[in-house]
Amino acid sequence: MSTFIQTLHLAWQNTNSLLCVGLDPEPTKFPGALANRSDAIFDFCRKIVDATAPFACAFKPQIAYFAAHRAEDQLEQLIAHIHLKHPALPVILDAKRGDIGSTAEQYAREAFERYRADAVTVNPYMGFDSLEPYLEHKDKGVIVLCRTSNPGGSDLQFLDVGGRPLYQTVAQRAAEKWNTNGQLGLVVGATFPKEIELVRSLVGDMPLLIPGIGAQGGDVEATVRAGRTAAGTGMLINSSRAIIYAGNGDDYADAAALAAQKTRDGINAYR
Amino acid sequence: MSTFIQTLHLAWQNTNSLLCVGLDPEPTKFPGALANRSDAIFDFCRKIVDATAPFACAFKPQIAYFAAHRAEDQLEQLIAHIHLKHPALPVILDAKRGDIGSTAEQYAREAFERYRADAVTVNPYMGFDSLEPYLEHKDKGVIVLCRTSNPGGSDLQFLDVGGRPLYQTVAQRAAEKWNTNGQLGLVVGATFPKEIELVRSLVGDMPLLIPGIGAQGGDVEATVRAGRTAAGTGMLINSSRAIIYAGNGDDYADAAALAAQKTRDGINAYR
Repeated sequence: MSTFIQTLHLAWQNTNSLLCVGLDPEPTKFPGALANRSDAIFDFCRKIVDATAPFACAFKPQIAYFAAHRAEDQLEQLIAHIHLKHPALPVILDAKRGDIGSTAEQYAREAFERYRADAVTVNPYMGFDSLEPYLEHKDKGVIVLCRTSNPGGSDLQFLDVGGRPLYQTVAQRAAEKWNTNGQLGLVVGATFPKEIELVRSLVGDMPLLIPGIGAQGGDVEATVRAGRTAAGTGMLINSSRAIIYAGNGDDYADAAALAAQKTRDGINAYR
Repeated sequence: MSTFIQTLHLAWQNTNSLLCVGLDPEPTKFPGALANRSDAIFDFCRKIVDATAPFACAFKPQIAYFAAHRAEDQLEQLIAHIHLKHPALPVILDAKRGDIGSTAEQYAREAFERYRADAVTVNPYMGFDSLEPYLEHKDKGVIVLCRTSNPGGSDLQFLDVGGRPLYQTVAQRAAEKWNTNGQLGLVVGATFPKEIELVRSLVGDMPLLIPGIGAQGGDVEATVRAGRTAAGTGMLINSSRAIIYAGNGDDYADAAALAAQKTRDGINAYR
């Protein structure tokens, strides 16, 4: 079991939360007071992180929101801040990378050495050797896309492969073949609770990163009942927009904290 | 037909080349004279670009090699340089992105507005709505992973879906459903010439980006015969390492030019 998975288990125990706070900063949605700051993205996210940390088991910055604004340095700062101030909470870099071995090595360096993320999301379309360079970082986590929460997720993931949809083959290979060092997790969208249940039945206690509650409308009760392990954990239930944009005034961090607390409690009601 | 596809057709005509030069800069492989320069990545690539431009129809920088070294600014500079000095040659940003709509919008901004790429590579695992935000940029190209050249490419892409491998479903959907504005291309590895032929039969004249000759060992003759259109074009045959590291001394750009010329001529022998 990798350091990441151990940290995650400890975080589940110690925080009593399955909530992963997603950090998708969009400057056009920031309150006016931040508008002209050169480090607005960092500052916005830092305040969200500090306010929501008591109610979260992990943070998930989405790299596209930083890259579109030339804010890679602010992403580095943000992850360093989380490690410093909230060292018990792992950071998952949501990047959904997928490329051949030599290039994947570079992406692994980007995620783990440059950004110092504890885990990264990856895309399975290019197969196992596209995952291996991440797995070489033995202390890190690698979270593979399986069943995604968007409407087009069904285009490929629901194609029939030997009598069952493709995403189940991905889940089974992840559990039986690819998880050579206990580092893997899977992304399974909350918009499909029955599919969470099927994936859980295929992968044992493997951590599931579950986006799709909050702004995307997934059902919390059904999600938790479908995805929990015997220990009542096993899930990183992600909410991004519904938390970080809960308020739009200068008290946005307080609003985010309240939304995070309610979301955590809403999840815990069904564990 | 998007501006990108038009530019590509003109480049094929005017350069008499199907060679796409891949830019995967690894500082540890640079000649000694560059070692201590803060803009070594830009400078290395710029010299390769200027030396190989007479023999190429396009350039393909791979973003991971820049991101791993905090060199996003050098990637911006490099693409600006190509547009300025070689305006007839399109730039394909090899990023293989794939994410839900709101995040894909950010990645599209990254590729097309920040980096000013003419086209970007994307991953189809999350389905059509993960491609749409790129297609909103009507003048740009979107090149979808179909059949990749790595060993693990078969893990998912060769799964049987309704009597044929998954990658053929991707090819057919790209051609029949997803190519709403004539912007799409497909990635098909040169290590599988018979599969290039099958894809060509499914997608008409759609441009194919074909990695895998050179360092990866694909057969040039078989590749060209399998992938060419009636006009003798339709392909971006990519070579990265075999060109940019053809030499390892201070004359590396000359060595790259020679390798590019030989590769172009080797391709043209079978058109």
